[in-house]
Amino acid sequence: TGPTAGLLVIGEEILSGKVADENSGFLARELRALGVEVRRIEVIPDIEAEITEAVRRFSQRFDLVFTSGGIGPTHDDVTWPAVAAAFGMRLVLRPQLEQLVRASLGGEFHARDLRMALVPEGARLEYGVPPDLNRWPVIAVANVYVFPGIPLILRRKFDSVRELYRAGPIHGRAVYSREGEGNIADTLDAVVAEFPGVAIGSYPRIDAADHKVKITLDGRDAAAVASATARLIEMLGAAVVRKE
Amino acid sequence: TGPTAGLLVIGEEILSGKVADENSGFLARELRALGVEVRRIEVIPDIEAEITEAVRRFSQRFDLVFTSGGIGPTHDDVTWPAVAAAFGMRLVLRPQLEQLVRASLGGEFHARDLRMALVPEGARLEYGVPPDLNRWPVIAVANVYVFPGIPLILRRKFDSVRELYRAGPIHGRAVYSREGEGNIADTLDAVVAEFPGVAIGSYPRIDAADHKVKITLDGRDAAAVASATARLIEMLGAAVVRKE
Repeated sequence: TGPTAGLLVIGEEILSGKVADENSGFLARELRALGVEVRRIEVIPDIEAEITEAVRRFSQRFDLVFTSGGIGPTHDDVTWPAVAAAFGMRLVLRPQLEQLVRASLGGEFHARDLRMALVPEGARLEYGVPPDLNRWPVIAVANVYVFPGIPLILRRKFDSVRELYRAGPIHGRAVYSREGEGNIADTLDAVVAEFPGVAIGSYPRIDAADHKVKITLDGRDAAAVASATARLIEMLGAAVVRKE
Repeated sequence: TGPTAGLLVIGEEILSGKVADENSGFLARELRALGVEVRRIEVIPDIEAEITEAVRRFSQRFDLVFTSGGIGPTHDDVTWPAVAAAFGMRLVLRPQLEQLVRASLGGEFHARDLRMALVPEGARLEYGVPPDLNRWPVIAVANVYVFPGIPLILRRKFDSVRELYRAGPIHGRAVYSREGEGNIADTLDAVVAEFPGVAIGSYPRIDAADHKVKITLDGRDAAAVASATARLIEMLGAAVVRKE
């Protein structure tokens, strides 16, 4: 088994349905491509105690934790105090971050912007691979990586540090069935039982596609995934439309 | 205060980044329009024990719980056993549901499809407003409403029962600022302190829009939201680009 991850989206605007969450989908796709299995996504409000509870729980349960949102200078930006509380740390003004805030905002700088440079004591500043000291770093405490909520910035910052997270690949196959789920369920049960190391999913379609069910087979052992796929195709016989 | 809700998306395919989650965004928008506040969204794998834990926790914490996914006939459809376990109920074959499964599948019916008619004893069958007994109902246990994962079907079924959830409206306003967050943070603090019953959010923009920050003001008391908005506009003065 490889590394697992939990995604914590701090987003009142997503809970209220005003804005679609783009960040968790992006991170799920990218992390999977890097070989990291996302096991849970939670969208929570910008309430400090709720963020603290979720960060602590995720940090204990998953190898990697990614948060998005709540790191600006206004009253609803409480991610850093919440993360500090989760780890029993104090918030301190980091000189490198203060410099970056002042330099990036120039004449637009206000005292309140210093709140963005106030991070838990002992936080790591990840300047990317290769490092770029003039760029705002990704800031991490233990296994918790704290990202901004604006999707474009989150994507740029993730790209700068993505190699930190690379693990062995996850192998995925798909088989398309012209028979419906009720007809192939027993076959799926048999393949699931025979290949316990392969995760098998069944996704019905109700539109006019050429198949009624897409079956996915995923795992870290390429040979096991290939064997399970071959076995499934053999058992489904004429029901197979195509495979990927 | 009005009713709250938690959304539980049972979706291995969303965690693995293969499919974008459309259901939680749809439900968040619709519930808000009905006056229900979504306070948490969780995407979890199709592991029975995890679903049971989340259903129990959500059911205790929120007025309404909505699940999507995991109610078909295959091995990865474990939502019903999980919900039954959360409430200490047995699963029973409901004759009305068996009839509907057989009628809707016709010649395509297989014994495994009966799994879809196996629901917790005492589950309520909601046939919509007005009721349509020939349609597959929305099935509920206590305050937990169980929906399918296919977005098109989830939307249709939600529409059939939406009036069950209608509550008093949530009033929302927005003010757009040409000044950045650092410059207006103290003003926001003052308005937040003066109007504790109004939820105020601050959302920066980094593109070339006509504003740098969108400020949202939401609450159940229309007069309080209007007063808070007027106060904010007065304090921001020339920084206001427009309001909604």
